[in-house]
Amino acid sequence: MAGPESEFDLIQRYFGTPSAGAVADGVRLGIGDDAALLAVRSGHELVVTVDTLVEGTHFFPDHPPASAGHKALASNLSDLAAMGAEPLGAVLSLTLPRVDHDWLAGFSHGFLALAEEVGIPLVGGDTNRGPLAISVTVLGEVPVGQALRREGARPGDRLVVSGALGGAACGLAHETQRRAEGGPVDASSPACARLFWPAARLSLGRGLRNRARAAIDISDGLLADLGHLCAASGCGARVDWPSVPRDPLLAEVSEQQARSCALGGGEDYELLFALPPGESLDLLAFSVDVPLTVIGECTEGAGVVVEDANGQRLDVARAGHDHFANTE
Amino acid sequence: MAGPESEFDLIQRYFGTPSAGAVADGVRLGIGDDAALLAVRSGHELVVTVDTLVEGTHFFPDHPPASAGHKALASNLSDLAAMGAEPLGAVLSLTLPRVDHDWLAGFSHGFLALAEEVGIPLVGGDTNRGPLAISVTVLGEVPVGQALRREGARPGDRLVVSGALGGAACGLAHETQRRAEGGPVDASSPACARLFWPAARLSLGRGLRNRARAAIDISDGLLADLGHLCAASGCGARVDWPSVPRDPLLAEVSEQQARSCALGGGEDYELLFALPPGESLDLLAFSVDVPLTVIGECTEGAGVVVEDANGQRLDVARAGHDHFANTE
Repeated sequence: MAGPESEFDLIQRYFGTPSAGAVADGVRLGIGDDAALLAVRSGHELVVTVDTLVEGTHFFPDHPPASAGHKALASNLSDLAAMGAEPLGAVLSLTLPRVDHDWLAGFSHGFLALAEEVGIPLVGGDTNRGPLAISVTVLGEVPVGQALRREGARPGDRLVVSGALGGAACGLAHETQRRAEGGPVDASSPACARLFWPAARLSLGRGLRNRARAAIDISDGLLADLGHLCAASGCGARVDWPSVPRDPLLAEVSEQQARSCALGGGEDYELLFALPPGESLDLLAFSVDVPLTVIGECTEGAGVVVEDANGQRLDVARAGHDHFANTE
Repeated sequence: MAGPESEFDLIQRYFGTPSAGAVADGVRLGIGDDAALLAVRSGHELVVTVDTLVEGTHFFPDHPPASAGHKALASNLSDLAAMGAEPLGAVLSLTLPRVDHDWLAGFSHGFLALAEEVGIPLVGGDTNRGPLAISVTVLGEVPVGQALRREGARPGDRLVVSGALGGAACGLAHETQRRAEGGPVDASSPACARLFWPAARLSLGRGLRNRARAAIDISDGLLADLGHLCAASGCGARVDWPSVPRDPLLAEVSEQQARSCALGGGEDYELLFALPPGESLDLLAFSVDVPLTVIGECTEGAGVVVEDANGQRLDVARAGHDHFANTE
C-alpha cells in the first residue's frame, strides 16, 4: 500500500461506511470522536455484553477473515437475543500483528454484512498492535422489566431449544482433524459452515419476552448452559436425550460422538428457555423463524439429568466449553 | 490452587465483589447473566468507548499487574471525561495465557480500586485463553446535547490543557532504557508513576459542559490530538511552546527531549479544550481540582503551528502515538 496508515485511518477506511452510522436512529455520534453517543429509548433498559475471539483459540490463520468478523459479532448478538433485546450499537477493538489489508477487507466485510442484516451500527473502534484478537462489545435495549434472565425458571416449566445442536462441535472436530492432516480448509463445507457462520436468534429472543420465564444462549454447550440456568433459577432439570434436535452432521458420527457434540459442544448459539405450563409452544413457534423443540422440563431440587428413550438415566460428562477448566 | 477453575469462577472470584454491583443505582443486572442491564437516566445520552492494552505494547511482564488494571480503566475513563460524561458501568474482556492467581489478584485490585474511587461498577466480564490482553469498554451518560465533542472550536478560542504534559513519555523512555539494561523495575519511581497510574479528569470534563466548545483527551500526544480537534472543527491552531506546562520530570532532560515528550508523547490523559472568549478561565479553574493552562489559540485556516518565546515558528515533527504508522 502507499505509505503508512494510522489507527484512525484504518478504522475509517474499513469500518467507516456511511451506512454503518445511518442504520439506526439511536446513533447521535459514531466513529471518530473520543466516544460514541447513543440514545436509549424511554422506558427501556440498556443491555451490554462483550466477547473476544483470539486467533489460535477461536479461529485459525487459514480460516476466512470474513468468518471471524461474522462470528465475533454473532456471538455477542446471541447474548442480546438471550436477553430479549434489540440491537443498538457495537464497538470493536482489533488487535493486529501488522496491517494486512486483505485480512482487514475480509474481516470488515464479514462484520459489516451481519451488522447491516440485523441493523446494528458500528459506533466505535480501537486498533492496537499485538497478537490477533477481536473484542466486540454490543449494546442493546429492552423494555424495562422485560429482559430475559437466567433466573426465573420453575419446576414444571418445559425446556425448549431453538434449531439443532452439535453442528459447531462437529465442525470443530472436522477442522481439528483437517488441520492435523495438513489439508486445505474448505470454508464452504457444511462442517465449516456450522462453525464459521452461526446465526443469532434475535427475533426469537424478542418473541420470548413476557412468555419465557428464563433464557440463555447455548455458547458453552447444552448441559453447561442448562446448568447455569438451573443454578440461577434454583431448580433442577430433566433432559430427554431422544428429543434433543441433532444437527444433520451428527448422522455421520457415532452415537457417543453425537451425544458429546449435542450435549457438550459449544458455539451453536441457539437459545434455551423455560416455558411455563400456560404458554402455548405452537403459538410461539408460529411467530418465529426457527424450529423449536421441547427437550425436557425443569424439576424440583438441583442438577441436570439426561434420560434415554426408556427413561434410563444416561451417564454424560457435563463437558461444557471452558477455556480454563482442567488446564492449570 | 485446588483444582481447575472455570471462566465463570474467575470473573466471580476476582471481580464479583458485592461492592462492584452495588456502587451505582443504574445497575439492574450485573455480572453472571448473558448480558448486563443498566438504566440510562431520562434526558441523558449513552456514551460508549473501548480501549485495549496488549502486553508487550502497552505494558510489560515485569510491570505491576495492578498498574495494568488501573491503566486499562483509566484510559477509558479519560475518554468519558473528554465527552463530559458521568461513568455508568464498565465491561472487561481479559485474554490470559494461563490462570495466574497472583497476576489476577494484583490486576483486579488495581482495576477495582479505581472503579470504586470514581464510582463505576464492573457489570460484565469475559475471559479467554491467549496472549495477555485487556479490553475494557466503558459506558457513561451525559445530558442530551451537552456532550463535549472534538468539533465546535472556532478561531479566537483559547486552547487550554489540564495538568502537565510529557510525564508519561518521559516515564516510557526511562522504562525502555531500564529494560534495555536489564535492571529491575522501580514501580514507585516518579517516572513509573507517570506511566503506570494516570488519572482521568472526570470532574474537569463535567465542569466543561456548556463552557468548552470542543474537547479531547491527550492520549496520542498534544500535537496529534490537537490536530484531531482542529480537523474536526475545521480550524487551525497556534501553540505557544513556553506556555506548555511541563511535567517536572522534563527538567532532567534536554530541551529537545522535553519538546518531544510534551508535544509528541502520548498517554498523559490530560484534557485539551477550546474555551470561547466569553468564558472565564479563572472561574472554571476555581471549580476544578487540576491546574489549567492556556497554551495557545484556535486560528483561521488549517494546521497546527508551534512558536517559541520570540514568536518564531518551531519545526516540530507531529509525532503522535500511532501503533501502525510507518511500520508497514
